[in-house]
Amino acid sequence: MFPQNLIEAGNLTKENLFQIFEKAKYFEENYTNGIKFPDLKGLTTVLAFFENSTRTKLSFELAAQRLSADVLTFTTAGSSLAKGESLADTIRTIDAMLNTARENTSTNIPKAMYVVRNKFSGVPLFIKNITKNTVINAGDGKHEHPTQAILDAYTLFKHYKNLENLKITIIGDILHSRVARSNITMLQTLGAKVKLFGPGTLLPLHLNCWNLEIFDDIDEVINWSEAIILLRLQNERMASGLLPSLEEFVKFYQINLNNFAKKDKIILIHPGPVNYGVELDYGVSKLHNSMIDRQVTNGVFTRMATMSLLANTV
Amino acid sequence: MFPQNLIEAGNLTKENLFQIFEKAKYFEENYTNGIKFPDLKGLTTVLAFFENSTRTKLSFELAAQRLSADVLTFTTAGSSLAKGESLADTIRTIDAMLNTARENTSTNIPKAMYVVRNKFSGVPLFIKNITKNTVINAGDGKHEHPTQAILDAYTLFKHYKNLENLKITIIGDILHSRVARSNITMLQTLGAKVKLFGPGTLLPLHLNCWNLEIFDDIDEVINWSEAIILLRLQNERMASGLLPSLEEFVKFYQINLNNFAKKDKIILIHPGPVNYGVELDYGVSKLHNSMIDRQVTNGVFTRMATMSLLANTV
Amino acid sequence: MFPQNLIEAGNLTKENLFQIFEKAKYFEENYTNGIKFPDLKGLTTVLAFFENSTRTKLSFELAAQRLSADVLTFTTAGSSLAKGESLADTIRTIDAMLNTARENTSTNIPKAMYVVRNKFSGVPLFIKNITKNTVINAGDGKHEHPTQAILDAYTLFKHYKNLENLKITIIGDILHSRVARSNITMLQTLGAKVKLFGPGTLLPLHLNCWNLEIFDDIDEVINWSEAIILLRLQNERMASGLLPSLEEFVKFYQINLNNFAKKDKIILIHPGPVNYGVELDYGVSKLHNSMIDRQVTNGVFTRMATMSLLANTV
Repeated sequence: MFPQNLIEAGNLTKENLFQIFEKAKYFEENYTNGIKFPDLKGLTTVLAFFENSTRTKLSFELAAQRLSADVLTFTTAGSSLAKGESLADTIRTIDAMLNTARENTSTNIPKAMYVVRNKFSGVPLFIKNITKNTVINAGDGKHEHPTQAILDAYTLFKHYKNLENLKITIIGDILHSRVARSNITMLQTLGAKVKLFGPGTLLPLHLNCWNLEIFDDIDEVINWSEAIILLRLQNERMASGLLPSLEEFVKFYQINLNNFAKKDKIILIHPGPVNYGVELDYGVSKLHNSMIDRQVTNGVFTRMATMSLLANTV
Repeated sequence: MFPQNLIEAGNLTKENLFQIFEKAKYFEENYTNGIKFPDLKGLTTVLAFFENSTRTKLSFELAAQRLSADVLTFTTAGSSLAKGESLADTIRTIDAMLNTARENTSTNIPKAMYVVRNKFSGVPLFIKNITKNTVINAGDGKHEHPTQAILDAYTLFKHYKNLENLKITIIGDILHSRVARSNITMLQTLGAKVKLFGPGTLLPLHLNCWNLEIFDDIDEVINWSEAIILLRLQNERMASGLLPSLEEFVKFYQINLNNFAKKDKIILIHPGPVNYGVELDYGVSKLHNSMIDRQVTNGVFTRMATMSLLANTV
Repeated sequence: MFPQNLIEAGNLTKENLFQIFEKAKYFEENYTNGIKFPDLKGLTTVLAFFENSTRTKLSFELAAQRLSADVLTFTTAGSSLAKGESLADTIRTIDAMLNTARENTSTNIPKAMYVVRNKFSGVPLFIKNITKNTVINAGDGKHEHPTQAILDAYTLFKHYKNLENLKITIIGDILHSRVARSNITMLQTLGAKVKLFGPGTLLPLHLNCWNLEIFDDIDEVINWSEAIILLRLQNERMASGLLPSLEEFVKFYQINLNNFAKKDKIILIHPGPVNYGVELDYGVSKLHNSMIDRQVTNGVFTRMATMSLLANTV
C-alpha cells in the first residue's frame, strides 16, 4: 500500500519506491511537450513555500501542471501570517475553502495536496496532523527532504539498474543537511551500502544509531565508492566557527578533477545549488559521470510519480 | 436588475441578495472536484490586492478558477507603482491591454473584472470611475467589505432560512471595521434586527444615523441575540491608547464558554483571522454553533455567485 | 528567415518586421474574449523578470495565455538567486527541468521561451549563450527593449500605413533609454527618418556613429515631425546633476498643448509610464493623436506575433 502522506523517507517501503520508479519511467517515456496527464485533474495543489527555493518549487509546479492539477501558490509574503494568524488557522482556512461544504457526507477523499517547505523541522508533520488533505514535505529545516532523496535514488537506479549493495558515500556538511538524512534512510531501504565523509564538526553526533562507517581520506572514498552524494557547503558554516577555513575544507574535502577523474565507474550526485569552488570543482560538473542536470530532469518525473501515487491512495 | 459593480453593501437590493443566495446554493450543490463552470469563460479577472490577505485573495482566486476565468494577479511589489506610476494610469494601462483595439466598435461589454483590496477607503470607487470594466471591492480601508458581508448573510440564511427580524449583535471594534459597516447595511436590507456591543472608544461617533441600539453587558447580548458577529481586535488598538488593557477587554467583551455556551439557539460568525484569547476563546470555535469554517467554505460559493451575476449584467 | 532569439532590434530585418505586423494584424482582427490560439501550445514561457514592471510583464503574460502557452513566473525574490546561486546555474537548472531527458535524441526544438528583463545590460544575451531555448529581451539595463520598439513601429505603421521616409523625432533622456536605442535601429531598418531632441547632458556621446541630426528648438521639432516618440524622464536625473532644474526642462522640452496642439498631422508615442507634468502635459494625452493607450493595446498583439514567429523558426 502506498501511504497517504510523504513526511519523511521512512514513510516509503522498498515496494513504494519501486512503484515510484516505474511510474516516473512511464512519465519520462511518454511525456512530450504540451501533454497533460489526467492524474491530478480536479485536485488542488497548494504550493506552500515558506522558504526560498528555485528548483524544488518550479519542479513541483511543473509536475502539478503536467498532471492537470489546479495550482494555488501560497507564500508568507502577502498573506495573513504577516498579520499574526497562526499556521494552523491558515491551513484550516484553506481546507475550509476547498471543502464542498456538504456537511453530512464525510468522505475522506482529499481535495487538495499541500506541498510544504519550511525552515522549521516538523512543520509538514504539524500540518498533516491538522488536515485530512495529503501533505508532501518539500524540505523542513534540518529534518528531511524526501522528494530530493527519491530523485537521487532514481538517478542512481537509472544508471546502475540495481541499488542492492551499491557503494555510496555522502560527503560534506551532513550535520545540517536534510537531504543527507533522507538519503541515508532511503538508500538503506533500497539495500545500498552508505558511508560518510566530512569534517568532524559537520558530522551528526548520534552517528552510532545509523551505524554508518566514516572515511578518513578522500582517496579511500573515491576508491571504494560507486556513487558520491556531495552536499552543498553553506558559506555561513565558516562564519559560525564550525570550519577553520575555506582553504582547509577545499584541500581535504573538495571533489575535483584530481581525485574524481581518476576513476571511471563512479558517478556524482549533488542536490544543488552547487557552491562551485567550495565542495565541487566546476570542471567535474562537466564530466559525463556528473549527474547534476539529469537529477533536475528526473526530479520533475519522480515528483509527478510521487504525487500521482499519493493522490490515488484513498 | 443586478448592478454592474459591487463597491459597497448598499449597491445590492434584497432581491439581488436572494439572487446571490440562490446561485451560491446552485454552485454549492453542483460543484465537485475539478468541475469548471463556464460563467466567466473569456473574462479576465484581475486580482489587484494592494494589502495582505490570505482568505479573501485565495477565495476569489478559487472562485475565478472554478468559473473558467483567466486570472491575472497584480500586486504593488514588482509593479510600476513602485516607480511612481499613479494608480489611475496603471488601471488605464491594464484596460488598454485587455482591449481588443477595434476602435470603431464601442461595445460596452466588460472584458475584465477588477477585484480590488486597498488600505485606503475609496480606492475601488476611484477605479470604478476610471474603467468600464466591472469592479468588486474586496475590502477598502475602514470603508466596506461587501463580499464578506454577503458570505456572513448567506451563512445566517442557510442556518435560519430567513433573516426577517433575526436578532444579530455585532461585537468588538466596530469603529475600525469595514466588515461591520458592510454587515450593518446588508443585514438591515434583509430585514434583520442589528445591535452593537463594544468599548465606547471603539464605537463609531455617528451611531445615531444608523439608529442602532448599543448593549451594556455581554449577558444581555447573549440573552437577546440569535447570532453574534464577532470582530477581530487588532493588537495595535491597545498600543494606540484606545483600550486601557487587554485584560479589561477580555473580561468585559470576550466571547467564551462561560457566556456563549449558556445558550443553544445562537450562532457565532467571525470574519477571521481570529485573534484567539482576545475577542474569542479557542474552545468556542470548536462548538457546533461556531460557523467560522463554514463561513470560509460559503465564501467561495457566494463569490462565485456574485462574480457570475456581475458578469452577466451587461 | 525569422531569427530564433530576439536580443536587440538589429536581429530583425525589414521583412521580419513586416511578418510581425501582418501576424499582429491577424491576431488583432481575430481575437475575441476567451479565444486561445494554439501557437504556443506545449511550450513553456518562463517570465524571468528581475526588475519591476507592470505593462511589459502583464503584456507578455496575456500574450502567452492567449497563445495557449504554459506560463512559469520566475522572480529573484523567493528564488535560490537569493542563496547566491549564479544566474547561469539557475538557467541550466530550469533548462534541465524542461528537458524530457531522452538523452540520446538531440533535437534542437525549443521546449521553452525565456522572457528576460534585467537591470544589467547584456543579461538576455548571456542567457542566450547558455540555453538552447528561445530568449526574448524584455528590457536590459540601458541597452535595448526591442519588443517596445516593435509595438511603437506597429502603432506608427497602422496610422501612416508606410514608414518609408516618415519623419520621427525622439525627445528626452536618450542617453539612459533602452527604448530609444531599439527605436532608432528599428525605425531606420524600416526606412524612417529619425532625429533627436533633448538636453545635451542627456544625449549619447557617440551620436556621430548613428549619424542623427539633433534639433535645437521644440517648435522646429513639431514643425518637421510627423511623429514624436517622447521618453520618460526619471526624477533621479535631476538629483544626479544631469539637469539644472525641473522647471528648465519643462520650459524647453515638455510636450504640451501650446506646442503639440498647433499641428494636425502629428502623432504622439510614449513607452509609459508617463511622468505627467514633466515630459508631457496631461492634456495632450487626451488628444485623438496621442497613441499612448493604443500602444499598450498593440503591445499585446505584437508580442503575440513575435512569440508565435520565434516559436516556429526551428
